Amino acid sequence: MSEEMKAKTIEALENGIPFVQRSGIKVLELERGYCKLMMPYEPNINHVGMMYAGALFTLAEIPGGAIFVSTFDNAKFFPIVRNLEIKFVKPAMTDITVEVRLSEEDAVEIAARAEADGKANYEWDCELKNADGEVVSVATCKYQMRVFQKK
Amino acid sequence: MSEEMKAKTIEALENGIPFVQRSGIKVLELERGYCKLMMPYEPNINHVGMMYAGALFTLAEIPGGAIFVSTFDNAKFFPIVRNLEIKFVKPAMTDITVEVRLSEEDAVEIAARAEADGKANYEWDCELKNADGEVVSVATCKYQMRVFQKK
Repeated sequence: MSEEMKAKTIEALENGIPFVQRSGIKVLELERGYCKLMMPYEPNINHVGMMYAGALFTLAEIPGGAIFVSTFDNAKFFPIVRNLEIKFVKPAMTDITVEVRLSEEDAVEIAARAEADGKANYEWDCELKNADGEVVSVATCKYQMRVFQKK
Repeated sequence: MSEEMKAKTIEALENGIPFVQRSGIKVLELERGYCKLMMPYEPNINHVGMMYAGALFTLAEIPGGAIFVSTFDNAKFFPIVRNLEIKFVKPAMTDITVEVRLSEEDAVEIAARAEADGKANYEWDCELKNADGEVVSVATCKYQMRVFQKK
């Protein structure tokens, strides 16, 4: 991914969906098969001073888009989120980060299945961590890659 | 619940958490053991014109607060969300609503367990529906009632 493409992709991830933009999420790192994102604490606090569950959900979900755009052929495929389960382990009292990695082997296998069948399910678990590195939430995120219909 | 208390409660549910306020969620109905909420389509669309998953999550989660404040002794108990699983069934292309009911029997039983043990887990499933009454998402929402520590 060129630096120009990377900057455009980060802009789209942070600002392309108004709901997500309003949360103030930031893409800290983005490479093929890897992303690190941060959800800021202050704009997302709830009525008792911890980060609201919906902001944590958003932080867990957006890597689905980040990994997709950095890893797959976006002219051929698009992703949908099928199911997301998030467990709230500990109050989130700081900015929160998440890292997701998708191996090259898995990426090749997912794209091959989508090519063969028109769609391919895939999933990963991720941990949301506070500024001390403690896990505040864990999520299982299930997506589906689909192939654009030819016109 | 008096009309004045009900108006204050709806105000708190809609505007008490900035993240939730920014989504524009509305409390359409609120009674002891019952709520109906609506997430507006327009401010929550994603990059491909359907409601973003995080807005659907928020609509599924907020009944936890709505049912709690309308049903339980808020001076004695408070709720936390433990786990939420949401399945995305169909693209959400309109305003979306959710209804949650908690029976009087279940409410009494949950409060009794919390009184006895200092906490009580409870959960429900809910369906998110579009303007045609079609289910777009289903969620399993797991909460815990806790007892305020006496000072």
